[in-house]
Amino acid sequence: MPSTALLTDAYELTMLESALRSGAAQRHCTFEVFARRLPDGRRYGVVAGTARVLDALERFRFDEPVLEALRAAGRLSQQTLEHLAAWRFTGDVDGYAEGEVYFPGSPVLTVTGTFEEAVVLETLVLAVLNHDSAVASAAARMVVSAGDRPIIEMGSRRTHEEAAVASARAAHLAGFASTSNLEAGRRYGVPTSGTSAHAFTLLHDSEEEAFRAQVAALGTGTTLLVDTYDIRAGVETAVRVAGPELGAVRIDSGDLAVLAVQVRQQLDSLGATGTRIVLSGDLDEFGIAALRAAPVDAYGVGTSVVQGSGSPTAGMVYKLVEVDGRPVAKRSESKASHGGRKWAVRRHRSSGTATEEVVSAGGPPPAEPGDRALQVPLVRGGERVGPASSGSGLQAARDHLGEVLVSLPWEGLALSKGDPAVPTRVLPPV
Amino acid sequence: MPSTALLTDAYELTMLESALRSGAAQRHCTFEVFARRLPDGRRYGVVAGTARVLDALERFRFDEPVLEALRAAGRLSQQTLEHLAAWRFTGDVDGYAEGEVYFPGSPVLTVTGTFEEAVVLETLVLAVLNHDSAVASAAARMVVSAGDRPIIEMGSRRTHEEAAVASARAAHLAGFASTSNLEAGRRYGVPTSGTSAHAFTLLHDSEEEAFRAQVAALGTGTTLLVDTYDIRAGVETAVRVAGPELGAVRIDSGDLAVLAVQVRQQLDSLGATGTRIVLSGDLDEFGIAALRAAPVDAYGVGTSVVQGSGSPTAGMVYKLVEVDGRPVAKRSESKASHGGRKWAVRRHRSSGTATEEVVSAGGPPPAEPGDRALQVPLVRGGERVGPASSGSGLQAARDHLGEVLVSLPWEGLALSKGDPAVPTRVLPPV
Repeated sequence: MPSTALLTDAYELTMLESALRSGAAQRHCTFEVFARRLPDGRRYGVVAGTARVLDALERFRFDEPVLEALRAAGRLSQQTLEHLAAWRFTGDVDGYAEGEVYFPGSPVLTVTGTFEEAVVLETLVLAVLNHDSAVASAAARMVVSAGDRPIIEMGSRRTHEEAAVASARAAHLAGFASTSNLEAGRRYGVPTSGTSAHAFTLLHDSEEEAFRAQVAALGTGTTLLVDTYDIRAGVETAVRVAGPELGAVRIDSGDLAVLAVQVRQQLDSLGATGTRIVLSGDLDEFGIAALRAAPVDAYGVGTSVVQGSGSPTAGMVYKLVEVDGRPVAKRSESKASHGGRKWAVRRHRSSGTATEEVVSAGGPPPAEPGDRALQVPLVRGGERVGPASSGSGLQAARDHLGEVLVSLPWEGLALSKGDPAVPTRVLPPV
Repeated sequence: MPSTALLTDAYELTMLESALRSGAAQRHCTFEVFARRLPDGRRYGVVAGTARVLDALERFRFDEPVLEALRAAGRLSQQTLEHLAAWRFTGDVDGYAEGEVYFPGSPVLTVTGTFEEAVVLETLVLAVLNHDSAVASAAARMVVSAGDRPIIEMGSRRTHEEAAVASARAAHLAGFASTSNLEAGRRYGVPTSGTSAHAFTLLHDSEEEAFRAQVAALGTGTTLLVDTYDIRAGVETAVRVAGPELGAVRIDSGDLAVLAVQVRQQLDSLGATGTRIVLSGDLDEFGIAALRAAPVDAYGVGTSVVQGSGSPTAGMVYKLVEVDGRPVAKRSESKASHGGRKWAVRRHRSSGTATEEVVSAGGPPPAEPGDRALQVPLVRGGERVGPASSGSGLQAARDHLGEVLVSLPWEGLALSKGDPAVPTRVLPPV
C-alpha cells in the first residue's frame, strides 16, 4: 500500500524543519480535534472516519518515494529529510468511538506525542474526519426520518470517486441499508444493491423487451425501473412480464408522494400486493420525512447524503492544546475553556436520557451516576489498539449509534433547526 | 496500479448481465455527459477532470482481484464474470478540453462504443467530472475576483483526502498559483507552498522564539503568521526578527480589509516596504472581491474552493442518446433536443467575443466565421489520443481557460447571479 504521508499540507513539514532547528520538535504535545459548532442548526453530529484515520496512520511513513518527492520539491534540508526517514508515530491516540454523537467542543480525537510526531498528522486526520463525519451526520438524520424503511446510498457519481467509497461506508455506519458502490462492498463489507437505469430501457426496442431481459437475468425478485416512459404503462408491463411475484418497482422522477399512492393501488389491483415500491430522485432528510405517510418500502438517496445535505465538511479543527504539560491557546480562544487536554463524559438521567456533554481539562470530571466516558483508547505507543480495521468495526459502530440516538432527548432528533440536543459544559481546569 | 473498475455502481454490471442475456450488450451506443443547468446563478462552468477520466480509464479492467470481489458479491453469473475478464474499452471518447468553459447542454464528454463498453464507465466518469469541474468552476471565479493577485489553495483538510489532491489540481487548472497539498505537487506538478500554522507559535515559549526558529530554518524570505496573539505586536516582532527583507506576513483571522491596511502601514513604517501581505480565513470569491481595494499581495483559500463554493458537485449526467444510430431519450426529455449524438461549436463576433454555444444533432452545425469547434478527440479505438497525462496537460488547460474567459461577454464574468454568459442554442437534427 502506498504511503499516506504526502496527503499533507506543506506547512506541516516546514514547521517540522523549523522546530528541529529550534529544538522544540521533541516537546511533548497534545493536539485535539473538535468542532466549534454544528452546521446549520443541526442537533447532533455523528463521528465517522476514526477507523479510516487509523488505517491511514499505519501507512503514514516517509519511505523512499515520499522522500524523493520532498527532495524534488526542494523545501526541506537534507538533515530534515534524513530525520523524516526514521520518523515513526510512537504516541497515543484517544477518541470518540465511531458511531458516537458529538456536540460543539466534544474532544472527538486526541493525539499525544512529540510535536514532530503529532503535527504532521493534522491534514490527513482532519480530511478523513471532516469528510466522513459530515456524511454520517447527514445520513443519520435521513435514517431517523425513514424510520423502519431501508435507505440505499447511491451518490457515487456526485462526489470524488474515492470520497464515494468513504461516503458509502459512513452512510452505512449511520444506518443506511446498502450502497450502490461496489468498492465499498469489497473494501468495507457494505452490502451493495442495484439493478438497472433508464439507459437499460432505452437500449432495448421497447420497455417490455427491457423488462423481459432483466427478469430473465436477475429473476422476478428484481427491481424494475418503471418511469422511463409512462409510469402507469410501465407498472402494467412490469407485472405482466414478471408476474405478481415481482420484487419491486423503482420510481426516480415526478411527484413521488402522489405516484407512490397511485402505483401502490395499481400494483395491488394487479395482485402484486407483495411488490415493493422504491423511490429515488433528489431525496434528502426532508423529502424522506414528507413521504412518511406514503406507501413506500425503500428510499434511494444520492447527492444529498454524499454532500452532507448542505454541509459537506464537518468543520472540525486540530488544535495544539498542551505543550510539556502547559495549556496553550490562541489569543482569540480562552485558555480556561480550550487550553489543556480534555476529558469528556456524557451525563444521563436515571431514565437513560442524556442531559449534557461535560468536558473538563486537567482530569476526568467528578463522576456522577449515569455518566458515560466518551473517549476510548485507539493507539498506544504507536500501536493500534482501537477497531482492528475500518471494515470489521462497522457493524459495532452502527449498533452503537442506534443506541446513542435513543438516549438523546426526543427534541434532539428533530429535523428542524435548533440548539444541540444536549448542551456542552466545559469545566475549568481543577 | 490497482484497477478502477469497482469505483462503479452495482447496477452498471447488473445491466450488463441483463444485456448480455438479451443480446443488446453489443448494440452500438453513444453516451453523453452534460449539465442541465449551471449551479446557483453561475454564468459559466469550467471543465476539469477529463485527463483524470482518461487516467482512470487506462486502469479500468476486470482483473482477478476485481473478479474475486464480484464473485464474492454473488450478483453476477459465472458467464458474465468470464465475459468481464476479457472486457476492454475499444470505443471512442471525445470531449471539451480541460480548461474549456461549458454551459447548460454542452456535450462535455461523448463516449461511443458497444453498450457493454460504455455503460460501465458511467459512475467513474461522472464522479471525476462532477467533482473536478465543481472545484474548477468555483476556483475560476475566485481567480477572476483576485485579478493579478495569486491565490494559494489550502483546503485539503476540508474534503476527503483524495478529493483534496484532485481539488488542488482543479484549482491550479483554474488559475490558482499553488497548493498546500504535497501529493498534488508530486502527482501533478502543482507548485506547493506553506510555512507555518498557529501551532508552531504556540509550541514555542514566545512568538519571538517561534519567529526566530522559522527564519533560521526557512530564511528571511519566509511568511510569518502574525495573528496568534496580538497582530500589531506580531508584525513588530516579525520585522525585528527577520529584518525589513521579511518575505511576507500572513493574517488568518479578524476583519481582513481593516487589518490589511493597518498592517501595510505598519510594515511600511518599519521599512519593510517589500514585505507582502497574505490573507486567509474563510475567503471565497465574494470575500476576495471585497478585498480588491485593500493592500493585499496574495490570498489563501480553503473550504470554499474544495467545496465548489456552495456547489460541490457539478450536476453532470451521463445519458444514453443513441442506439445503433437511432436517437433515444426518456419521455421527460425531448428527443428533438436531447436524442442523438451532439456536435458543439462556440460562435463569436468578429471582435472575438463569444455570442452563443451551438449544439446540433446529426452532424456539426453549418459553419460560420468565428466558430470554434469545442470537442477534441480523447480516445480512439480504446487508445488514448488526448492529453498524455493528467499532470502534463495542466499548464495547457490553465492557459486555455485564461484565453476562453477573455472571450466571454464582460457581464458573463460577473459574480452576481444571472443567466449563463452565452445562451446555448440546440439545433434540431438535420
